[in-house]
Amino acid sequence: MSGVVVQTIERAGHDVVDGLAAAGVATVHEAQRRTGLLASYMRPIYRGARIAGTAVTISAPPGDNWMVHVAIEQLKAGDVLVLAPTSPCDDGYFGDLLATSAQARGCRGLIIDAGVRDIRDLAEMQFPVWSKAISAQGTVKNTLGSVNIPVVCAGTVVHPGDVIVADDDGVCCVPRETAAHVLTQARMREANEADKRAKLASGVLGLDIYQMRERLEKEGLKYI
Amino acid sequence: MSGVVVQTIERAGHDVVDGLAAAGVATVHEAQRRTGLLASYMRPIYRGARIAGTAVTISAPPGDNWMVHVAIEQLKAGDVLVLAPTSPCDDGYFGDLLATSAQARGCRGLIIDAGVRDIRDLAEMQFPVWSKAISAQGTVKNTLGSVNIPVVCAGTVVHPGDVIVADDDGVCCVPRETAAHVLTQARMREANEADKRAKLASGVLGLDIYQMRERLEKEGLKYI
Amino acid sequence: MSGVVVQTIERAGHDVVDGLAAAGVATVHEAQRRTGLLASYMRPIYRGARIAGTAVTISAPPGDNWMVHVAIEQLKAGDVLVLAPTSPCDDGYFGDLLATSAQARGCRGLIIDAGVRDIRDLAEMQFPVWSKAISAQGTVKNTLGSVNIPVVCAGTVVHPGDVIVADDDGVCCVPRETAAHVLTQARMREANEADKRAKLASGVLGLDIYQMRERLEKEGLKYI
Amino acid sequence: MSGVVVQTIERAGHDVVDGLAAAGVATVHEAQRRTGLLASYMRPIYRGARIAGTAVTISAPPGDNWMVHVAIEQLKAGDVLVLAPTSPCDDGYFGDLLATSAQARGCRGLIIDAGVRDIRDLAEMQFPVWSKAISAQGTVKNTLGSVNIPVVCAGTVVHPGDVIVADDDGVCCVPRETAAHVLTQARMREANEADKRAKLASGVLGLDIYQMRERLEKEGLKYI
Amino acid sequence: MSGVVVQTIERAGHDVVDGLAAAGVATVHEAQRRTGLLASYMRPIYRGARIAGTAVTISAPPGDNWMVHVAIEQLKAGDVLVLAPTSPCDDGYFGDLLATSAQARGCRGLIIDAGVRDIRDLAEMQFPVWSKAISAQGTVKNTLGSVNIPVVCAGTVVHPGDVIVADDDGVCCVPRETAAHVLTQARMREANEADKRAKLASGVLGLDIYQMRERLEKEGLKYI
Amino acid sequence: MSGVVVQTIERAGHDVVDGLAAAGVATVHEAQRRTGLLASYMRPIYRGARIAGTAVTISAPPGDNWMVHVAIEQLKAGDVLVLAPTSPCDDGYFGDLLATSAQARGCRGLIIDAGVRDIRDLAEMQFPVWSKAISAQGTVKNTLGSVNIPVVCAGTVVHPGDVIVADDDGVCCVPRETAAHVLTQARMREANEADKRAKLASGVLGLDIYQMRERLEKEGLKYI
Repeated sequence: MSGVVVQTIERAGHDVVDGLAAAGVATVHEAQRRTGLLASYMRPIYRGARIAGTAVTISAPPGDNWMVHVAIEQLKAGDVLVLAPTSPCDDGYFGDLLATSAQARGCRGLIIDAGVRDIRDLAEMQFPVWSKAISAQGTVKNTLGSVNIPVVCAGTVVHPGDVIVADDDGVCCVPRETAAHVLTQARMREANEADKRAKLASGVLGLDIYQMRERLEKEGLKYI
Repeated sequence: MSGVVVQTIERAGHDVVDGLAAAGVATVHEAQRRTGLLASYMRPIYRGARIAGTAVTISAPPGDNWMVHVAIEQLKAGDVLVLAPTSPCDDGYFGDLLATSAQARGCRGLIIDAGVRDIRDLAEMQFPVWSKAISAQGTVKNTLGSVNIPVVCAGTVVHPGDVIVADDDGVCCVPRETAAHVLTQARMREANEADKRAKLASGVLGLDIYQMRERLEKEGLKYI
Repeated sequence: MSGVVVQTIERAGHDVVDGLAAAGVATVHEAQRRTGLLASYMRPIYRGARIAGTAVTISAPPGDNWMVHVAIEQLKAGDVLVLAPTSPCDDGYFGDLLATSAQARGCRGLIIDAGVRDIRDLAEMQFPVWSKAISAQGTVKNTLGSVNIPVVCAGTVVHPGDVIVADDDGVCCVPRETAAHVLTQARMREANEADKRAKLASGVLGLDIYQMRERLEKEGLKYI
Repeated sequence: MSGVVVQTIERAGHDVVDGLAAAGVATVHEAQRRTGLLASYMRPIYRGARIAGTAVTISAPPGDNWMVHVAIEQLKAGDVLVLAPTSPCDDGYFGDLLATSAQARGCRGLIIDAGVRDIRDLAEMQFPVWSKAISAQGTVKNTLGSVNIPVVCAGTVVHPGDVIVADDDGVCCVPRETAAHVLTQARMREANEADKRAKLASGVLGLDIYQMRERLEKEGLKYI
Repeated sequence: MSGVVVQTIERAGHDVVDGLAAAGVATVHEAQRRTGLLASYMRPIYRGARIAGTAVTISAPPGDNWMVHVAIEQLKAGDVLVLAPTSPCDDGYFGDLLATSAQARGCRGLIIDAGVRDIRDLAEMQFPVWSKAISAQGTVKNTLGSVNIPVVCAGTVVHPGDVIVADDDGVCCVPRETAAHVLTQARMREANEADKRAKLASGVLGLDIYQMRERLEKEGLKYI
Repeated sequence: MSGVVVQTIERAGHDVVDGLAAAGVATVHEAQRRTGLLASYMRPIYRGARIAGTAVTISAPPGDNWMVHVAIEQLKAGDVLVLAPTSPCDDGYFGDLLATSAQARGCRGLIIDAGVRDIRDLAEMQFPVWSKAISAQGTVKNTLGSVNIPVVCAGTVVHPGDVIVADDDGVCCVPRETAAHVLTQARMREANEADKRAKLASGVLGLDIYQMRERLEKEGLKYI
């Protein structure tokens, strides 16, 4: 499907989104049973950003960023742009001008399974990007794609309005319908982790906290 | 061609070189019609450096850095070393001792389609390097290569004396003959961009600034 | 060999270990005749760490970190964990909870030919990791591996008790038996390098310091 | 979602499936507007196979092929197995014994975003496989996955019952709902292509057949 | 430079071209002192082809094969098409229809630093292709490139009219100006090799034929 | 360790070697508990070869094949050459002349974690090679390496005299000391497999043969 802009999408709620941002990618990913993670080649252009937002998706031809301009008009405050090329491409689809425009509309960042440029400016603007590549290679504006259709970005399905969580560990997509439930699970994990962390810091072993010794013995582990 | 050192090369002028450094890779690459960019796997060993210089080129065998010593003698203030191995290699051809020597002769940095080492020292010395790899693997000094012949470095032809522009976005080569013209183009783009950036920051859409709506409609884009 | 934990290993001495840490990877690698370097894709999760420690090795199935818990019990102060999966895997075997536990036992860092997560926390804790990947992808605890057997990690054999040296340049393994000798060699190189660095900084050429001109001429190098 | 086997799925009709097999991947991909293609790293283990079948999908943990056994029970004649690991893995999940079992149930082949082994036997059996890797590395049977849930395989969403078309050019997924329409489009393309092929073979240029000269001139192409 | 078609190019002579084809890539590459080899990821779509021809070059945008149609008009009998994308791309620029057209004009094959499709048809037509990828992913016809300008293809500069030699070992470019000289060198190598092959087959060692023993001893090789 | 040739090595017995060849890589790898497999990027230059032999190992510098000549003198009938470069390299270390020489001494093939050339000739000679790359790029003869020392080839330790088994599935190393035991295990597996194959071919499910249903239920697998 190409040449379509879906203007009305349902978005996950702001409270849930911000809760998921605070939990972070590793916890959220565990909380939704290890699903939704984008490929590990998606790396932040600078360290330390930890965001969540609602996805406005872009399906774009290789080396053509026309649809990014179309997508920016669809942005609402709290959104994150998610771009998947229709075939693999490392070109720099996005730079400081587009970031200025997106940021003016309240966009929190970009997830792009392709390249990005002007990264020094983007870092100064504090506009975070997770990308497959950094490349100054420009793009054209000649071929239609689509905005706000489901896309596969870095190996994971993203629907418009889903929650994107991103930090130094990578990027995770949480489907809108289950986002509130995942947040609940994430908070339970965090509460649980604080306790474990304290025990581990005091020198208690995971072997004992998780009661692994019996199972290890049963599986046949031999100490020499 | 191997075993040759060209001692007299024409270099682009200092004013043009410094002007191109200020413009940066993304702008320069656009200004010369999207040509001359090195492959996006060429990454800086530390962030924030933005340089330009005139190329002293090295064609070196895999795992053999003998010609780097030969090339350093050919350096003049404002030069950048550009090393292309004759077959793919990730070894660390270059470290802090060679950087000390190159810096003593006014060299501004190294572009190497191979590996580099001692990167903590290089960062402290503020000697910037863009490389394919970081590797402590040493090299030998047994086989001749050449200095100041045209090379293909990371997919792009570099002639001795060409301008190398490098920053966090990557590396671009500007042929000596056209460097002044490219600088003029780059400055025009920058003037133009400042105006656009202000409009975009105020919330005006690229769709309107670039008058894209009519062409999008003509191509058949459908809003749903 | 699988399902074995070797509890008693000989470790290299602390003085030697700390001496090798001070020398750094590039020097140590040269000092042991360019052997022992791990593949250059092993990169630190943050810059600036420079460590050495004695190896506690883990052979683990893909996507299964059960043995990490077993290995932590075997740690002594000054050790470094070295994990090699039995087939290639980028999953995040290790995060902040395991790091808390390892650090509580005096562990100095982790070398893992696979993925790691919670890297912001690890950086804050100053628990350094050199890894093939950063990935939030979790692992299971279902299949045995082994602890303290010889492993091939990133292309290099590591025996339990060997010295692991790691910094921004990468990771090098020094066999326990030869560690003292390698340290001696490394210190000789360093002494030698200080002198060369001063000469090079003053503008003397490597061509002259290393007396290369005659050999270059003999090999047929032509200056044009 | 993990630990689920969906036993009742709707499959595309046999006539449509066989029609798509005859059309081949390149034509089918064009006929559904360049969507549904799996990543180009998916390569056949032997040349010359051209198949289509209905997808029985497997979501499996890295290095664990337990769910393949579960999936084989769900196979009907004309099906194709489609395996996506939950994180990247090259292990050999599948060999001649599993192929014997699958073939006994009428399975037409395997699409696997991981590794396969016993490829000489598979070629002799004429059981075609498209895979990311060839690897003798075995797997365990310890962790649940799921069968007949939607998966992302090599970058493309596959639902159970979708049509998988595969030949020397790669692998394409056609959603069950649109398969009949895509077949109609594919046949129209083929009719059209035969005519063009004859003209091109006689020396008529594409520039003239597709009437490109005017548009090229308008875009500014210059003949020198 | 973009949007240019150079119509008049000088081509290497047919006798030289055919002589180089007979010599094969490995010999030709040695004969021109190990220069001109394209990257080793350039692989034939089928085994056994051994060709040489004069280059008609194409510089094409990523995912856009418009210029291939333009280039085919420029073909003369004995030419080989050489396509370099302006940024990395694996899309299938070329299939059986374009091959039919090119073959009708006497084209001997295609060298493409991108993808190709319809490879079963191409093999049946005996139209050989060396490519970076095999991919059914189609391309558009929207953006100009150039024909018969110098390009960098798979890391090597190719000028229009240069000789391209290609076989199972890969692809090598021989500049037009030096092609006759390279052929002479290649034939000398071959004469020389026949003699050596006979000696080696009879059991005489290379150590003795090439008189290596003395040099090995001098370098310090120790037999234990 | 560099510059050493070990002339006297112990080799595994011929009967064991030939027995392992007949078993093939996948079976042998299972029979020695999934150890010893070389990385899956090691691919045969032609299909259908199935060999085993005793390893004569070569540690060679990148781009330098001098030691291959030295190693050939050490070959005995039934040996296989195993070459590991000291840093990653794709150059073509080996071609038809060296193969002629090796074959004259009874060598059964080459395992090389680097490149090979003249592959058409090698296929005609029926001299099988498993390599990381195919490349016409030649090498020099300038720097010493070693012969018959332990090496890490494609991620696996190989000692001189170990058994190398190689076929279309890849390459496996069996330590000399355990080779007879592994052969016994392999034969037991084969006997066992024939029976299973017959059952599976008749339509009996692996779920039943391996009695998996109970364990699957216990783990919580749900049929819907």
